[in-house]
Amino acid sequence: MTEYRIEHDTMGEVKVPVDALWSAQTQRAIENFPISGTPIESAQIRALAQIKAACAKANAELGILEQDMADAIVAAADEVATGQHDAQFPIDVFQTGSGTSSNMNTNEVLANLATSKLGKPVHPNDHVNASQSSNDVFPTSIHVAATASATNELIPALDHLAQSLERKAKEFAQVVKSGRTHLMDATPVTLGQEFAGYAMQVRRGIERIEASLPRTAEVPLGGTAVGTGINTPIGFPQRVIELLAEGSGLPVTEAVDHFEAQGARDGLVEMSGQLRTIAVSLTKICNDLRWMGSGPRTGLGEINLPDLQPGSSIMPGKVNPVLPEATLMVCAQVIGNDATIATAGASGAFELNVMLPVIGRNLLESMRLLGNSSKVLADRCIDGITANEERCLELAESSPSVVTPLNRFIGYENAAKIAKTAVKEKKTIRQVVIEMGFVERGDISEADLDKALDVMSMTHP
Amino acid sequence: MTEYRIEHDTMGEVKVPVDALWSAQTQRAIENFPISGTPIESAQIRALAQIKAACAKANAELGILEQDMADAIVAAADEVATGQHDAQFPIDVFQTGSGTSSNMNTNEVLANLATSKLGKPVHPNDHVNASQSSNDVFPTSIHVAATASATNELIPALDHLAQSLERKAKEFAQVVKSGRTHLMDATPVTLGQEFAGYAMQVRRGIERIEASLPRTAEVPLGGTAVGTGINTPIGFPQRVIELLAEGSGLPVTEAVDHFEAQGARDGLVEMSGQLRTIAVSLTKICNDLRWMGSGPRTGLGEINLPDLQPGSSIMPGKVNPVLPEATLMVCAQVIGNDATIATAGASGAFELNVMLPVIGRNLLESMRLLGNSSKVLADRCIDGITANEERCLELAESSPSVVTPLNRFIGYENAAKIAKTAVKEKKTIRQVVIEMGFVERGDISEADLDKALDVMSMTHP
Amino acid sequence: MTEYRIEHDTMGEVKVPVDALWSAQTQRAIENFPISGTPIESAQIRALAQIKAACAKANAELGILEQDMADAIVAAADEVATGQHDAQFPIDVFQTGSGTSSNMNTNEVLANLATSKLGKPVHPNDHVNASQSSNDVFPTSIHVAATASATNELIPALDHLAQSLERKAKEFAQVVKSGRTHLMDATPVTLGQEFAGYAMQVRRGIERIEASLPRTAEVPLGGTAVGTGINTPIGFPQRVIELLAEGSGLPVTEAVDHFEAQGARDGLVEMSGQLRTIAVSLTKICNDLRWMGSGPRTGLGEINLPDLQPGSSIMPGKVNPVLPEATLMVCAQVIGNDATIATAGASGAFELNVMLPVIGRNLLESMRLLGNSSKVLADRCIDGITANEERCLELAESSPSVVTPLNRFIGYENAAKIAKTAVKEKKTIRQVVIEMGFVERGDISEADLDKALDVMSMTHP
Amino acid sequence: MTEYRIEHDTMGEVKVPVDALWSAQTQRAIENFPISGTPIESAQIRALAQIKAACAKANAELGILEQDMADAIVAAADEVATGQHDAQFPIDVFQTGSGTSSNMNTNEVLANLATSKLGKPVHPNDHVNASQSSNDVFPTSIHVAATASATNELIPALDHLAQSLERKAKEFAQVVKSGRTHLMDATPVTLGQEFAGYAMQVRRGIERIEASLPRTAEVPLGGTAVGTGINTPIGFPQRVIELLAEGSGLPVTEAVDHFEAQGARDGLVEMSGQLRTIAVSLTKICNDLRWMGSGPRTGLGEINLPDLQPGSSIMPGKVNPVLPEATLMVCAQVIGNDATIATAGASGAFELNVMLPVIGRNLLESMRLLGNSSKVLADRCIDGITANEERCLELAESSPSVVTPLNRFIGYENAAKIAKTAVKEKKTIRQVVIEMGFVERGDISEADLDKALDVMSMTHP
Repeated sequence: MTEYRIEHDTMGEVKVPVDALWSAQTQRAIENFPISGTPIESAQIRALAQIKAACAKANAELGILEQDMADAIVAAADEVATGQHDAQFPIDVFQTGSGTSSNMNTNEVLANLATSKLGKPVHPNDHVNASQSSNDVFPTSIHVAATASATNELIPALDHLAQSLERKAKEFAQVVKSGRTHLMDATPVTLGQEFAGYAMQVRRGIERIEASLPRTAEVPLGGTAVGTGINTPIGFPQRVIELLAEGSGLPVTEAVDHFEAQGARDGLVEMSGQLRTIAVSLTKICNDLRWMGSGPRTGLGEINLPDLQPGSSIMPGKVNPVLPEATLMVCAQVIGNDATIATAGASGAFELNVMLPVIGRNLLESMRLLGNSSKVLADRCIDGITANEERCLELAESSPSVVTPLNRFIGYENAAKIAKTAVKEKKTIRQVVIEMGFVERGDISEADLDKALDVMSMTHP
Repeated sequence: MTEYRIEHDTMGEVKVPVDALWSAQTQRAIENFPISGTPIESAQIRALAQIKAACAKANAELGILEQDMADAIVAAADEVATGQHDAQFPIDVFQTGSGTSSNMNTNEVLANLATSKLGKPVHPNDHVNASQSSNDVFPTSIHVAATASATNELIPALDHLAQSLERKAKEFAQVVKSGRTHLMDATPVTLGQEFAGYAMQVRRGIERIEASLPRTAEVPLGGTAVGTGINTPIGFPQRVIELLAEGSGLPVTEAVDHFEAQGARDGLVEMSGQLRTIAVSLTKICNDLRWMGSGPRTGLGEINLPDLQPGSSIMPGKVNPVLPEATLMVCAQVIGNDATIATAGASGAFELNVMLPVIGRNLLESMRLLGNSSKVLADRCIDGITANEERCLELAESSPSVVTPLNRFIGYENAAKIAKTAVKEKKTIRQVVIEMGFVERGDISEADLDKALDVMSMTHP
Repeated sequence: MTEYRIEHDTMGEVKVPVDALWSAQTQRAIENFPISGTPIESAQIRALAQIKAACAKANAELGILEQDMADAIVAAADEVATGQHDAQFPIDVFQTGSGTSSNMNTNEVLANLATSKLGKPVHPNDHVNASQSSNDVFPTSIHVAATASATNELIPALDHLAQSLERKAKEFAQVVKSGRTHLMDATPVTLGQEFAGYAMQVRRGIERIEASLPRTAEVPLGGTAVGTGINTPIGFPQRVIELLAEGSGLPVTEAVDHFEAQGARDGLVEMSGQLRTIAVSLTKICNDLRWMGSGPRTGLGEINLPDLQPGSSIMPGKVNPVLPEATLMVCAQVIGNDATIATAGASGAFELNVMLPVIGRNLLESMRLLGNSSKVLADRCIDGITANEERCLELAESSPSVVTPLNRFIGYENAAKIAKTAVKEKKTIRQVVIEMGFVERGDISEADLDKALDVMSMTHP
Repeated sequence: MTEYRIEHDTMGEVKVPVDALWSAQTQRAIENFPISGTPIESAQIRALAQIKAACAKANAELGILEQDMADAIVAAADEVATGQHDAQFPIDVFQTGSGTSSNMNTNEVLANLATSKLGKPVHPNDHVNASQSSNDVFPTSIHVAATASATNELIPALDHLAQSLERKAKEFAQVVKSGRTHLMDATPVTLGQEFAGYAMQVRRGIERIEASLPRTAEVPLGGTAVGTGINTPIGFPQRVIELLAEGSGLPVTEAVDHFEAQGARDGLVEMSGQLRTIAVSLTKICNDLRWMGSGPRTGLGEINLPDLQPGSSIMPGKVNPVLPEATLMVCAQVIGNDATIATAGASGAFELNVMLPVIGRNLLESMRLLGNSSKVLADRCIDGITANEERCLELAESSPSVVTPLNRFIGYENAAKIAKTAVKEKKTIRQVVIEMGFVERGDISEADLDKALDVMSMTHP
C-alpha cells in the first residue's frame, strides 16, 4: 500500500507518494500523461541538473539568491547529475510540449533535496527556477545533452569504428577481388580499397557532426519565457552559459538571437539530418559486408564474419551476419527518428516550439543507438573479419570486365565483342583475344596483353 | 555478486546467471547486443507464448510430441502469456534481424519451465520449437500481437474518442461560429459541425484499420525455414493456426502464399501506413482544438480546454493545451515509426525479411501510443471542453464572408466590393449594402437582406 | 512580340496574351507563382472539366442555369477533357493552397469557350462556377483523377505485372535452387515458388488499392465554401455526383460528412500509404531480381535478365539490370512523394486543407510512375527472364542447410556438427553423415539419407 | 511522319530520328524508359557539358586526344552548356541507375556536334568519353550542378529573403505585441524581434549549406569504372578537376577517397538534409505569417499581407496568404524529396550507387524550388507586409501574462492568483493587483506597479 502526503501548487492540493522527492506539479503530470510508460532520456536529466547548478551559481553572483541557498541547490543538482535520482523523474516523455512538467520535476526534486540540505524552505519556482523559464531551460537541456552525447560518446564510437575499418583496409591491401557495379562484374579492386572507402564514410560522418555541432551547442538559456529575457538580471545569460560550459566541459554558447533560439529547433533538426546521413553510410557498409560474407556456398563468399551465435532454430550449423543486421535496424530506427524530429521541428509557432520532449527523445536515442552499435559492430564483427583471398582472386580474374584495359589497344567496340564472346563461350578474355586474332594481327603484343590483364595492376590508374 | 551456471549450445559453453530461466543462446544474445537497453514489446512476448502453445498442441495431435510433454509446454506458455515472466526476456530489440534470439529465448524459457513441470528434459529446439523456425514464428508473433493490439486496444480507444467527439458535436449543434479557410474569415459553420467532422475522421481511422486488418491477421506460421514448410508434418499449418485463432480469440488466418508471407512484411507496412493516416487525422484535430482554445485574450478564444496543470514555471496562471500537445507528439512519433517500418519493410531479400524486431517494436509502439493518447485525450480534454458561445457568434457575424449569400441577388463582383468596403471602413455588411443603394434600387429587399445575412441559416444549403 | 488584351477582375485590370483562353485571375496567378515551372497533372485538368460539366447539367436541372448556357459549358468542358486545351492551364502547381487559381483557370477557359459557342457572355464565377467553390471542386478533382488513375491505369498495370510474374512462376516450377535467409545458404526452394511469391505481393498491392478506394472515391463536391453547401440549391450534391459518376464512369460517391471531407484530405493520405506499400513490395522484388541476375561470373548467376542496352561507357560488353533499377528509383520517388503527402495532409486547419495542389501533384505522379514502370518492367524485363537451371541446382545441393531434414533422425545438435564439418572440410553433407558413422550406427538408413537429402523434396512439407 | 536514319552500337542497329543529334544508345534508352516523361534537370545537362569540356582539355594535355579533336569537343560542350541543345536530352530521368544513358546521350550529342565541326569522325566512347566512365562522370555532374545551384541561386535567394526580413525587423522594432507560447497569451515581444528571429533562421540556413558544401563540391571524377582510375593517364584526376573548377568557377575538389566517392552518395544526402532543415525553418516562418495575418476580423489580425489575387471563387472580397501557402507546399515537397534522396542514398552496393538520376532530380528540384519561392516570397509578400500597431498593442496589454514581472515583488503563487482572477472577472492585471491589496499592503508601490506593467519594458531583460 503506497502512503501519500499532501502537496499543493497554484491549482490546489495533490496526493504525492510519501517518499517521493517530487511535489505537486510532477504528480499532476504523472497522472495526466499515462501514454508511453517511458520518461525522458537520462542524458537529459543530467543536463537539466547541470543547467540548474549553473543557474544557482549565476543567481548567487548576481544577487538573486543567497549564497547558502545557491550552494544547497548546486549540491542537490550535483547529486541528480550522477544519475542516482533518475527514478525521481517518472513523467512520461509524451507530456506538455514545452517540457514544463520535466522542468518542474527538476525544480521540485532539487527544492526538496536542497531544503533538506539547507534546513530551510527552498521554493521550486521562486528559488530553483529563478531567472529561468521552462521555455529556455528545457530546450537548452536537449542541446546540452546532445552536445555531450555527440562529443563524449558518438564521435569516439565512430572513431573507434573508423579505426577498426582502417586496420582491415591495411590488412586487405593486397587482396584483389572483382569490383561490382549494378551488382554486375566490373574491373578489379582490392578488398583494402573497399574497407578504406568504408572508413572514409565513417570519418566523414564525424566531420558531419562537427560541422553542425556549433548550432547544436548554441543554447537559448537566458531567454526565459519568450526570448526577451524577462525576469533575468542584466548579464545573466552570458554568465550562466559561461558557468554551464565550465561545469559540463562542453563548448556551449549563448544563442546569437534568442527569438530564433526559442521559436525554432532548427539546430536539432540539422543534427538529426547528419545522424540520418551517418545511418545511410552505415547501411551501405553493412549491406556490403553481408553480401561479401554471403554463403558459405551459395553466395559471394569473399569474406568471413565472426560466428557469434547459432543462426537458426531449425537449420543446424547456420551462422548469420547478426551485427550488421542489428546495425541496419539501428539505421532504420535513426531514419524514422529523424522523420519524427523534422515533423516536430516544423511545428513551432510564434515564441516556442512545443514538440520539445519528442525531439529530445528521438535525437538522444539516435545518438545512443548509433554510438553503441558502432562500438559493438567494430569489436564483435569488423575486427574479426577474414578474407577468402583465393576466392577473391578467382572471381576477379573471371570477370569479363578485365577486358577494359584493352580499349586503348583495340577500341571499345572490339573489346565489347570479346567480353560477350568470353561469357557466351565460357572462355577467358585472354583466350578470346588470341582466338580473334588481335595478337596475330599486331593490335596488341602478347606481353602487353599479359600486362593489361594483370588484375592487380587494374586496381590503380 | 551474480552467480552463474554453465549451459551449452552448438557453439560451446556459456555462463548463465544461476536463477535465469533462459539458457545458452539467450545468454549469447544478451552479450552480443548491448545496443538500446530495450527488449521487444511485451505484447509480442505474449504472442510468442500463444504461438508456442498452439504449436505444442498441434505437434501432439500430429504425433510429433508426446502428449505429456506438449501439456507441459502449453502450461509453461500459458504462464509466460500472463506477463509474469517478462523479465526473462532481456534480449535487446536490436538483435539478429530474424528475431531468432527472441524465438530461442522463448524456446529456452519454455523448455526450462516445462522441464520442471514434467520432470524430464524438454529440449528448446527439438521439442519446444518442433515443426517451427524463427523465420515463421517470429514474424507471426508480430502479426498476432498487432492484430490483438488493434482489436483489443486501439480500435476501442478510437471508438471511445469518436464517442466523446460525437457527444460534443451534439452539445455544440447550435453554436454558430465563423468558418475559416486559409485561416481567413469565411462563411459561418456550427461548432457542432466541426466536432462531427473530427468524429468522422476518427471513425474513418477505425475503418482504415479494419480495411487492412485481414492482411495483418494473415500469418506465415507453418512455412518454417524458407516458406516451404520443411520439417512440418502434413496438415500442420492449418491445424496450428486454427488452434492459435481459438487460443487467442483473434481472426488469424494462414498465409495464402508462404513465400510472400516470409520474404516480405508488406502487411505490416500497410498497417503502419494506416496508423500514420490516423496520426495525420489526430494532428489536424489537435491543432484545431489548440487554435480554438487559444487565448484567453490574444487568441481565438472560441472554446475552453480543461485546466489540467500549471502551464508555466515563470508566467503565473498560464494554462496550456497539454493533452493536444502530447497527442501531437505521439502523432510525430507514429509518423517517424512509420518511416522506420517502411525502410525496414523494403529491406527483405529472398526468403526472409531480416528487419523483423525493429518492425515489431515500431508498429506495436505506434499502436500503444495512439491507443493510450486517444483515451486520455477523450477523458481529460475533449470531455471537458466548453464553448464560448457569445464570442463565437460575435466573430461569425463580423466575418465579411457573410456577404456570400448576396451573390445571387447582386452578383459576385458587387458582393466583393461590399466586403472590401466593410473591412476598410469597419462597417457591417448590412450597413454597406444599404449605403451602396442595393436595397433602394430594389436589387434586394430589406426582408431578403435580413434573411440572407442570418448566420445560422448559412450553416446549411 | 506577345500582344495583349486587357481583362479585369475584382482587383482591377490585367494584361493577358491576346490569344489566351484564360482571363484575369489566371494571369495574376501565372505572375504570382514563378516557382517550379510545372503545372498541375493533366489527369487533374481532365477531372476538373468533368466536374464542371456535371455541375452545369445539375445547375440546369435545378433551375440555376439556362439550359443553353449549361449546354455550352458542357460542350466546352468536353473539349477540355480531351486534353486538347492543356496548354491553357499554365499556372504553377505551387500556387494558392486551395487550388483556387486552377479552379478559376478552368472557370475562365470554359467561360471563354462557352461564350464563343453560345454567342452571349458566360461569366466564370456566376455561371461556370455556379453552386460551387474552389474548396469543394478542387479537392474533388484530385479524388476523381486519383480514382480514374487507380482504376484505369494503375490496377491494370499491376495486374499485367502480376500475370507476367505468374507465367514465370509456372515456367520455373521445377527449377530447384538454394533458399537464402540472412543472405546465407538455407534449405532449397523452387524458382517458381519465388516468382509466385512476387506475383502475390503485386496482387496484394491491387487489394490494397481496392481496400482504400472507397475513401478516395468519396468526394466533397456540394460542400462549397466551408462544407455547409452555402449557395447550392437543395439536392445539388446528390444530383451532381450522380452525374459525375455517370459522366466519368467512376464509382464516385458523396462525402458522408462534408466537414471531414473539406477540412481533411485523409483519404488521399491513406491511398498514398498504399502506393508506398506497393513501392516497398516492388523494391523487394527488384532487388531479388538484381541479385539473382548478378554476375555473369562473380555473382549469383541464377537467372538472366534480357539485354536491353550497353551497360557501361567504359567496361565493354557489360549489361546491367536497368529496368529493375529504374523501378527501384520509381519506388524511392513514391516513398518520398508519400512523405510530402503526409506532411501536406497533416497541415489542414479548420474548414480547409490548403496543401491541395502539392497533394494532387505527388499522388497522381506516384500512380503514373508505378503504372508505367510496372508495365515496362513486365514487358521488357520479366517476360524475358530465363533460368540457369544447372547453376541453380548445383548451388541448391551445395548448401549446408540441406542437413535440416536430418534433425528428426539425429537431432538438431548433431546436425549442426555435420553442417559445420562439411563447410570446414569442403565436403558434402552426405559424405560427412557417413563419415561420422550415423548410417553405420543405424541412426538413419542410407535410403532414408538419400530421400532426406533430395533437394526437390525439401521444397514442400 | 518522322524520318529515321540507322545507327549502331555494340548491340546492333537502331532507328534514330533523322534530325536527332543523338545516336544509338540514346535511342535505346528513350525506348527502354517510357516512365515519367521528364528528363534530367537542365542544370545537370549543363554540368555534364562542363565536365566533358574539362576532360577533353585534360586528355589533350596528357596526350590522350589530338588537340584539334579536343578543341572540337570543347566547342560542342560549350554550346550544350548554354542550354540551346536541351531538347537533345530526352531520356527519362527514371533510367539506368548509373545515369549511363544520360552520359552516353552527352557523349553522342557531343560526338555528332564535334564531328561536324572537325570534319572527321569523333567517337562517343573512344574520344568524348576518353579517360572517363559514367560511374565517375554522372555523379560528378550532380555534385557540380548542386554546387552551382547552391552557390549561384539558392544562397543568393536566401540572402535576399533574409534581407527582406531584416528590413521588416527594423521597421517593426517598436511594435509591441503579445508573445505566444503553446498558442496561449504570454509576455510581450516586439514584432521586430519576431522578424529578426525569422531572418536569423534564414541566415542559419545559408550557414547550413555552407557547412556541407565542401562535401558536395568534392567530386569522384577520375575514378572511372570502380574508383581505381582504370584507363586514366597519371595525373588525370588532379588536372581535370582543376580545369573543371576553372571552367565552372566553382570550388570543386577531387575526392579524397575515390571508393567512398563512387560507392556512396553521402555528400548529397547530407546536403539534402540541410535543405530539409531550411524547409523546416520556412515552414515555421510561413505559418507564423499566416496566423499573424489571419482575419481580417475573426483571426489575430496583427499584420496585413499584400493582396495578390482574389482569394475565393465563391466568397467575394476574400484575400488569402497565397505566397506563404505556396512556400509551405514547396517545403512539403522538399521534405518528401529528401526522403527519396535518403532512400536512394542508402541503396548503394559495392563500387557504385545506382540510384543516381533520382538523387539528381530531387536534389536539384529542391534547390530550385527553395530558391524561387524564397525570392517571390520576399518580393511579393514580405516586402509588402504592414503592421496593425494598435491591434498589436491592445492585445499585448490584455495578456494576463503581463503579471510576470510581479513575481519578484509578490511571488509566483500570488501572481498566479491575480492572473486567474483577471481572466475570470474580465479585469486588467493592474485592477486586480490593487483590488487584492498588494499596493495598500506595500508589497509593491504604485510607481513600481506602473513600471512593472509597461509592456515595452518587458521586451528585454
